[in-house]
Amino acid sequence: MGKQIRVGIAGLGNVGIGVVRVLSHNSDLLLSRAGRALTITAISAREKNRDRGVDLTKFDWHGNACDLARAENVDIVVELIGGDNGVAKDVVETAISNGKHVVTANKALIGHHGTNLAKAAELNKVVLAFEAAVAGGIPIVKALRDGLAANRVERLTGILNGTCNFILSNMAETGRPFAEILAEAKALGYAESDPTFDIDGIDTAHKLSILAALAFGTEVDFANVHVEGIRHISPIDIEFARELGYGIKLLGVAARVPDELGGGIEQRVHPCMVRKNAPINHVSGVFNGIEVIGDFVDTTIYEGRGAGQGPTASAVVADLVDIARGLRIPAFSLKATDLRPPNTIPMGRRVGAYYVRFMVVDRPGVFADIAAVLRDHDVSMESVLQRGRSRGERVSVVMTVHETREEAMQKGLQAIAALDSVVEPPSLIRIEDL
Amino acid sequence: MGKQIRVGIAGLGNVGIGVVRVLSHNSDLLLSRAGRALTITAISAREKNRDRGVDLTKFDWHGNACDLARAENVDIVVELIGGDNGVAKDVVETAISNGKHVVTANKALIGHHGTNLAKAAELNKVVLAFEAAVAGGIPIVKALRDGLAANRVERLTGILNGTCNFILSNMAETGRPFAEILAEAKALGYAESDPTFDIDGIDTAHKLSILAALAFGTEVDFANVHVEGIRHISPIDIEFARELGYGIKLLGVAARVPDELGGGIEQRVHPCMVRKNAPINHVSGVFNGIEVIGDFVDTTIYEGRGAGQGPTASAVVADLVDIARGLRIPAFSLKATDLRPPNTIPMGRRVGAYYVRFMVVDRPGVFADIAAVLRDHDVSMESVLQRGRSRGERVSVVMTVHETREEAMQKGLQAIAALDSVVEPPSLIRIEDL
Repeated sequence: MGKQIRVGIAGLGNVGIGVVRVLSHNSDLLLSRAGRALTITAISAREKNRDRGVDLTKFDWHGNACDLARAENVDIVVELIGGDNGVAKDVVETAISNGKHVVTANKALIGHHGTNLAKAAELNKVVLAFEAAVAGGIPIVKALRDGLAANRVERLTGILNGTCNFILSNMAETGRPFAEILAEAKALGYAESDPTFDIDGIDTAHKLSILAALAFGTEVDFANVHVEGIRHISPIDIEFARELGYGIKLLGVAARVPDELGGGIEQRVHPCMVRKNAPINHVSGVFNGIEVIGDFVDTTIYEGRGAGQGPTASAVVADLVDIARGLRIPAFSLKATDLRPPNTIPMGRRVGAYYVRFMVVDRPGVFADIAAVLRDHDVSMESVLQRGRSRGERVSVVMTVHETREEAMQKGLQAIAALDSVVEPPSLIRIEDL
Repeated sequence: MGKQIRVGIAGLGNVGIGVVRVLSHNSDLLLSRAGRALTITAISAREKNRDRGVDLTKFDWHGNACDLARAENVDIVVELIGGDNGVAKDVVETAISNGKHVVTANKALIGHHGTNLAKAAELNKVVLAFEAAVAGGIPIVKALRDGLAANRVERLTGILNGTCNFILSNMAETGRPFAEILAEAKALGYAESDPTFDIDGIDTAHKLSILAALAFGTEVDFANVHVEGIRHISPIDIEFARELGYGIKLLGVAARVPDELGGGIEQRVHPCMVRKNAPINHVSGVFNGIEVIGDFVDTTIYEGRGAGQGPTASAVVADLVDIARGLRIPAFSLKATDLRPPNTIPMGRRVGAYYVRFMVVDRPGVFADIAAVLRDHDVSMESVLQRGRSRGERVSVVMTVHETREEAMQKGLQAIAALDSVVEPPSLIRIEDL
């Protein structure tokens, strides 16, 4: 049994307190699994005297988190402050340059600075670990790094944001509109008071960029991830999707593009239609789900809670156990200096099927006009649905189109949107073959 | 970049050749992930001159696998011979006592001798790893050992045998009987020519006993796992299950029994009815699926291919990468000498809901007799279904009963089976609340 390992926690919100709870509640178990005690020695937060429901008096208090990151009696700094810059970044950099291991749940920080932080950690011979940054309770970082290490990953697809999945699942169940369910999600604590990062897909993109780096051995490239959120999804799209045999999910998709098609990595976040029976379509409510396809293992799927005190703390502590056990695996599985630029594919090059909905004035020739535009853009229709008919009134026309290049699809849509009889911007949802 | 690590493969069947393929096909990737080359130096199999579709001429050939396990130029022995005794056990013991690490896909061996082999490995300071022994492509051993290390596991439930899941899924889809689908599964290569271990639940029990040891920190206790297979499942049960809102799956269930209820670990394998919408009910065909509930992480789910060359080889090679990276984590997460006896609970103490089907002669008073017997055994009915009525003929009566102790249920069934009007042994399927 080795010496104890000393943990400093910077940030005492929901997750920080969760980490305190796990380390105290399961201390015997952790001692036997890690082979040594995990002991909190220091903490830091903005307000010292708030009642956080746990006894924190035996830990050294640091008003300045960077002091904690330099403290003599800390071996691992747990960063739970959040944000892609500012204090969180300072704390992590200070810890690394002071020879402390870092465990963080901060997806924005790793999404923006992951490659550089990993390089700094390697230079300073410390561990940088971030299982908790992606999909809370799902040990997906370790699955990619260790469990699937034998495979060249072909594609990774994930429901990575519980707020969006809760909203879409509820819209599908109740038929009610986005804004109403969002308000409810806020009331239930499933959505932040400012939910922008979640519902506009940014949070999913942070996580996707981290998983893509791990899966493909590439630098983290959040800046080039194509991002769309779910604000524009309407109950009528969900209803049409159901009629066509699909569910609608906000997915992060990262896929290897073969060299013969130009090479590179697709990295995109947007609402998708997926087959009703696709495993990922069964992931509902606040749960996250990730599908990984490897060249030898074929399809593997992981599901669990994406957020919350217990699941996120569970991931943080798993990283602490790794370090206590002596694991010294590079943050992104390969040495940070070996990570290649990903050559992230521009969205225009996506090839796939599409669902589009037009709001048109129902009069003779409308459909022929639309069909002609699509033909002129080499877009080939698969099926058409029209709900109701009422001469001279507005009606929805829905179609699915066969495998098409995004570029052609977008140009076709622009041309259709310019038609006189089309009275609203068309709604487009990509169909993913999962 | 460290020195290469030298691998000897004992057993060149489907999986052995898969390992050769992965190591050669993904050698660059593995070098960068493991930090050193994984090099096959020696092989062993029964027949030397069979064409196995890959070039094996550059490896040392050992007619006797134990010679390979002693060979100077082997650091890790990969045991793919199979069987709970005989050559496989000799090879693993020889390797360990000669200071070689061991990676095995042999669930029978680990199920029967896991604790002792883990102790021997620790004494000799070598790794014993068996990710490939359970659920092929699903990295569940590592998930329990590393990803969920922060949690006290409460319950683990798994579809661990692809043959059974293929048969049950097909019976549900087609309504055809067990024997017919089994014959088809054999023809498709999804069932062995002697499928006993699979369809009688023994293979699932081997795997469950391994996962239970990992999850609960207990000795491997295959001998005390309650085991039932799927031979007795009939299309009519599947049909009734569907009417009641359930699917039928062969599950391995391992659960912690709280101290206030006597303490210990439930370990049982039998067909189960699970809610139609339960995530595990969506795992179909040859796929495996495992649900793990931890005290902090809550529910997590893992799915993937349970067998086959690629997935199993992927798991073997992931273990090789672990060892090459320098991981020295005990086989069952804790030191083998710290594993506690599991106090496996006798099946009679299971508490849960039940489905039972009686074949009775349809005449007045039959149902009253059955109801009286159940009442006398304190078994409380939840619902009753009867298909058709035809005075004097044989008809099926189906009922579900509320939470009951298995013991009481079995005694009640025996008494009912003894009634004159009951013309076949009753069929019982446990309902699991997942």
